[in-house]
Amino acid sequence: MTELGVLQTTDGTASLRRAVIGDVPSIVELLADDPLGAARDGIEGAAGLRPYAQAFESLDADDAHLLVVAETGGRIVATMQLSFIPGLSRRGALRAQVEGVRVHADLRNSGLGRALLMWARGEAERRGCALIQLTSDKQRPEAHRFYSALGFTASHEGFKLEL
Amino acid sequence: MTELGVLQTTDGTASLRRAVIGDVPSIVELLADDPLGAARDGIEGAAGLRPYAQAFESLDADDAHLLVVAETGGRIVATMQLSFIPGLSRRGALRAQVEGVRVHADLRNSGLGRALLMWARGEAERRGCALIQLTSDKQRPEAHRFYSALGFTASHEGFKLEL
Repeated sequence: MTELGVLQTTDGTASLRRAVIGDVPSIVELLADDPLGAARDGIEGAAGLRPYAQAFESLDADDAHLLVVAETGGRIVATMQLSFIPGLSRRGALRAQVEGVRVHADLRNSGLGRALLMWARGEAERRGCALIQLTSDKQRPEAHRFYSALGFTASHEGFKLEL
Repeated sequence: MTELGVLQTTDGTASLRRAVIGDVPSIVELLADDPLGAARDGIEGAAGLRPYAQAFESLDADDAHLLVVAETGGRIVATMQLSFIPGLSRRGALRAQVEGVRVHADLRNSGLGRALLMWARGEAERRGCALIQLTSDKQRPEAHRFYSALGFTASHEGFKLEL
């Protein structure tokens, strides 16, 4: 287990660490426990956990990605993926991209999400990123207030096309 | 040179290929020839081409990234970066991310941009992506019409934070 830090919440602390394969079911539960994620994620059906485990292996094999979990009382209570993307734009800037942020319903508004994103920002700075970016579904106005309060600017339209 | 395809325009064709280090100055010129890019990109100043060349090496060394240029009459007329990002969300979906799209001013509205993005979509499908995504500055309404016409949906807010 690679410990990454301690996140402060209003109720106590959670420990942040790099996810391991055994965390995948808990991460999928967090992804699915969400009005938008419920339709997209879950381990029921023939494929079950397999596509998630394969995606985990891809992330885990590449230093350009960091899948983290926050744990408290032996329970996974939050997850986030950071991906580090080089590019020529902005004078060859490395950018950190945040994907798949989820905080367990019991810990929303506990400061855990804020602590998680502040950690992400610090990690992006340590890796020399010039920018940290994410997209958030327009159906999540409370998430937008959250990111704005952390200093993010909703300067862009986020376009998606399902294949 | 890795030829990737032929792009049809209203004026003729452009050939698409993987960028090489010698293309970097032309790519930077395209990035800078833009109302938003002008303030962010260019090779003047002490650092000059160096940060761009370093970013090129990072992209070129990793199969998860594909920096392309379109060439016609020996001239680079368009560029685009595709990055392939694994993740647990959406049943372990691989997503293709488009960054740094630029078409030379002489070839705007020639169909070249459309052909470039259609090629990107095809490449994302060939690599097994479930999603293709990009963000576009809210100051680019004509770009938003362009992406919408290609089937993209502006479903997300794109948040950025400069570090």
